[in-house]
Amino acid sequence: MKKKLNKDNAVQKVQTAAGADVKKKSRKAQGKGRRVQKLKVIPLGGLEHIGMNITCFEYEDEIIVIDCGMAFPEDDMLGIDIVLPDITYLEDNIDKVRGFFITHGHEDHIGALPYVLKKINAPVYATKLTMGIIEHKLLEHRLLDDTERVVVKHGETISTKHFKVEFIKTNHSIADAAALAIYTPAGTIVHTGDFKVDYTPVFGGRIDLNRFAELGEEGVLALMIDSTNAEKEGFTQSETTVGRTINRIFDEHKKGRIIIATFASNVDRVQQIINAAHKHKRKVIIEGRSMVNYITVASELGYITIPNGTLVDIDQIDSFSDDRLVLITTGSQGETMAALSRIAADTHRKIAIKPGDTVVFSSSPIPGNEKAVTNVINELYRKGAEVIFQDTHVSGHARQEELKLIYALTRPKYAIPVHGEYKHLIAGARIASTMGYDKDHIIVLSSGDVLEISEKKAVITGQVQHGIRMIEGLGSGDVGNVVMRDRQSLAQNGFIVVAVSMLKNTNEVLSGPEIVTRGFVYVKESEDLIDDCRRVAAEAMQYCFDRNIADRNKLRNTIKDKLGEYLWKQSRRTPVILPVIMEVE
Amino acid sequence: MKKKLNKDNAVQKVQTAAGADVKKKSRKAQGKGRRVQKLKVIPLGGLEHIGMNITCFEYEDEIIVIDCGMAFPEDDMLGIDIVLPDITYLEDNIDKVRGFFITHGHEDHIGALPYVLKKINAPVYATKLTMGIIEHKLLEHRLLDDTERVVVKHGETISTKHFKVEFIKTNHSIADAAALAIYTPAGTIVHTGDFKVDYTPVFGGRIDLNRFAELGEEGVLALMIDSTNAEKEGFTQSETTVGRTINRIFDEHKKGRIIIATFASNVDRVQQIINAAHKHKRKVIIEGRSMVNYITVASELGYITIPNGTLVDIDQIDSFSDDRLVLITTGSQGETMAALSRIAADTHRKIAIKPGDTVVFSSSPIPGNEKAVTNVINELYRKGAEVIFQDTHVSGHARQEELKLIYALTRPKYAIPVHGEYKHLIAGARIASTMGYDKDHIIVLSSGDVLEISEKKAVITGQVQHGIRMIEGLGSGDVGNVVMRDRQSLAQNGFIVVAVSMLKNTNEVLSGPEIVTRGFVYVKESEDLIDDCRRVAAEAMQYCFDRNIADRNKLRNTIKDKLGEYLWKQSRRTPVILPVIMEVE
Repeated sequence: MKKKLNKDNAVQKVQTAAGADVKKKSRKAQGKGRRVQKLKVIPLGGLEHIGMNITCFEYEDEIIVIDCGMAFPEDDMLGIDIVLPDITYLEDNIDKVRGFFITHGHEDHIGALPYVLKKINAPVYATKLTMGIIEHKLLEHRLLDDTERVVVKHGETISTKHFKVEFIKTNHSIADAAALAIYTPAGTIVHTGDFKVDYTPVFGGRIDLNRFAELGEEGVLALMIDSTNAEKEGFTQSETTVGRTINRIFDEHKKGRIIIATFASNVDRVQQIINAAHKHKRKVIIEGRSMVNYITVASELGYITIPNGTLVDIDQIDSFSDDRLVLITTGSQGETMAALSRIAADTHRKIAIKPGDTVVFSSSPIPGNEKAVTNVINELYRKGAEVIFQDTHVSGHARQEELKLIYALTRPKYAIPVHGEYKHLIAGARIASTMGYDKDHIIVLSSGDVLEISEKKAVITGQVQHGIRMIEGLGSGDVGNVVMRDRQSLAQNGFIVVAVSMLKNTNEVLSGPEIVTRGFVYVKESEDLIDDCRRVAAEAMQYCFDRNIADRNKLRNTIKDKLGEYLWKQSRRTPVILPVIMEVE
Repeated sequence: MKKKLNKDNAVQKVQTAAGADVKKKSRKAQGKGRRVQKLKVIPLGGLEHIGMNITCFEYEDEIIVIDCGMAFPEDDMLGIDIVLPDITYLEDNIDKVRGFFITHGHEDHIGALPYVLKKINAPVYATKLTMGIIEHKLLEHRLLDDTERVVVKHGETISTKHFKVEFIKTNHSIADAAALAIYTPAGTIVHTGDFKVDYTPVFGGRIDLNRFAELGEEGVLALMIDSTNAEKEGFTQSETTVGRTINRIFDEHKKGRIIIATFASNVDRVQQIINAAHKHKRKVIIEGRSMVNYITVASELGYITIPNGTLVDIDQIDSFSDDRLVLITTGSQGETMAALSRIAADTHRKIAIKPGDTVVFSSSPIPGNEKAVTNVINELYRKGAEVIFQDTHVSGHARQEELKLIYALTRPKYAIPVHGEYKHLIAGARIASTMGYDKDHIIVLSSGDVLEISEKKAVITGQVQHGIRMIEGLGSGDVGNVVMRDRQSLAQNGFIVVAVSMLKNTNEVLSGPEIVTRGFVYVKESEDLIDDCRRVAAEAMQYCFDRNIADRNKLRNTIKDKLGEYLWKQSRRTPVILPVIMEVE
């Protein structure tokens, strides 16, 4: 299954100080003097929903892929664990694929990598922390040895035959995020990745606004820009403002334990909590598998500094008095199986809430999780905890004024809002419009669109195969729509199996019809209804026998139709009905 | 089943101008001079969640019930249409029940009445519009003729042997809302119902703050106060502010249709939309069954004024140009089957979205509905509509400053926050605390609690049976937890039926095992897995035969266990497994 690395995958790594060399190359490449082939930009996901970001840039015999994310299942995707993009287009063009360029280490940008790399083995390019997180995933999927990985620093450029990709420092809710300047023969496209502008970040310096300004001077063909917060006015606050709030909470809660739930990947947030704990002489327990994973990687790579003796194991919890403890935990989204939810529900092995505890949600609910979060908050209150869930989080995404800043600096010819649901893209398009772009220069893409873009024009010329793959359990295959529709029916009304044994090739009934049902009615209290079902099924069979209908399919369909009709009339309900005819020789 | 009205249900209706008579009586009744029996306050719902408000007041041989609401199902209540309170306690004390006193016409305060009245036929007391809405329900349930209904005006008092209940004018997001002053031998309890303080309401005058002040002077034992918005600072804005926004939207959108989705029961909102339409010479179409119902009742009873010729039928939609039309519709919560959702999804019989349409959400999402609303917004954008969903709604519930105002006016001895989830009650308790109440005088109740309350003390002395009844389809019975758990399993992983025909009382297999499955895997692409299931089932049977296990239950359990084990190992999945053994004689 694995594709051998071909020679074209060999890459050249170019260190650029101010990007001057690149400038000349990209200007030249913009098509003066030779016939320009078309540059194609093809998003395979990420434009109809939050998550599953993956975009192909194609020029002649080369494709580079920006990000490779998964999505979390929608409410109606019953039993599904994760959602992956359909990458048929990449599989069909496997020889063109030169590599995956990853903007940052969030699941919606890296989560599909292990699944995709199994089919398309191309190099992965990312900054250090991002690569650390990816490697942790590859290890779990036993892909580490077979995957070529290149750690790229901010300011560095990766070159293929037609493309050069420069990693530019940005800020986000995870450290080491990068925007990408993609130099192509058709011009330079700047892709912001997920970003915000943080003038006072916790770690690693602020977004490289000067490089965005230089790119603007060099000439930018198109700006693909994060629209997640495009509906929101103003400027997203700095991560350090949260640190101040957390310190205030520590000051105001000197007694009792402090339990703080946040996003496992927000290493800077965890750093600030650890700083506050250290300052207030509290020990820190990290709880929740994904939290432990992220902090381990970040700590190994130097992205988080934990004073000696600050971290203690959860098994030591009883060795410290409550006013000496902080617990940093997963579950800020109310996820049923996450640590905080189990603590709130009293099903955690080692910690239970008690009066005096202060629980801080250093997070805001991702749309769709509001109710789950509220349920956990209610449980915590009920157990006697104080709960704080306001002013303890800032977003990692740029708001309107930040988006305008990036437009002002880069001055692209075309504006392409990306990331988020359709309403976010529309809001992003409005920002472009206020910045003076007309309809022909604002491009709202859908997944699968083939955008052909050059200085002269930008046109959607077609669609490639795209979509989602619903994955559950250990599976790597798509669960599919047929199964999903069945689950939705079963969830609503349960099922009824009508089982009959018949002598083969005759209409002689040897046993049954038996009725077996689950999820429809409580059988022990519904004996009359079950008897009626048996009778209606038997009548349906007799109806067929009277008409000499020997075909088993017809017999099954008649049972199904008559019983369905009867139950609809009786109760306006539509359980899944499955007749089973056993043939006895 | 129906209880005959007994003589104690006969009531006396006392008109009070300023409540002076009542004042003397209630003072006297507060227990000076004779031994006071205990007053019990027993909420049967409404305290763990939004909805299902129903509270009993019990004194000696009398119970009065305040409100009788339903709740909407939670996400994990699969297939359930509505949720009703368990009223076993009322059924057990049916001879005591003197009547249902309803504060306003929202489903979470009246929705259970038709179901409860079928079991407990007691009189219903409500203001005119509230009663109009109730009667519409009773008509649907064929209960109108058998239900004693008493329309009460604001300022009027209903008396039973021990209780007097005065209806006091309040404001809310539905007209004709009332607070109740419940005069009991133990003292006066003021129950606000759902309320806000609107100094400039659209219809029917402002909340009777003076009466609240008088009650404070007379002496209030306890205040049961709406806590839905207790987390929110400040003062809820007046309904008329929305009217101004709507007018501005009409001014700014002179071309194209305007489609406004709002709560069907918010008659004042609809009035303001109709006013704006009339002013801007647009015709109005009302779409959505519940919207039509509410507007019809409100119009008949004089709660809404529709200028002649303003309303047109949806079938006339093509007779008017787009700039002459306004559509007022249900679906502001993204409900799949509501008019707006069907319009957005292009499945509405008569209206489809087109570019130029402006869609206004004059609503905010009820917690849990955020995602559904967003999905509809995305669809509308995709079809080319402009969508407006900000500043076009105000809440019907009092915020913190309004709550403080009512405390300041009524000066109750005990503070009892009600309505909402636990976190709202806690926020309500905090308001009481800031108003100077100590822990012993702030009472946070749970459903089923028996609160015994007097001037001397307020103590929770026990719990009565309480809970929920999950109703679906035409049913009136509880679906129950067993069925719900089965549906949840089926939703996650589907089911597998293993069918076998056997000669009765022997281990001779005549046919099978056959595998029938839905919602587990796509059968056509999983033939190997189905074959494996059949093999594992056959092996499980052979295992039993080898050990001379003749008991069919043991046989079934062995098949179930072995197949379950196999599938868990193979795929980490747990479909519902149901072995069916057909006995052939």
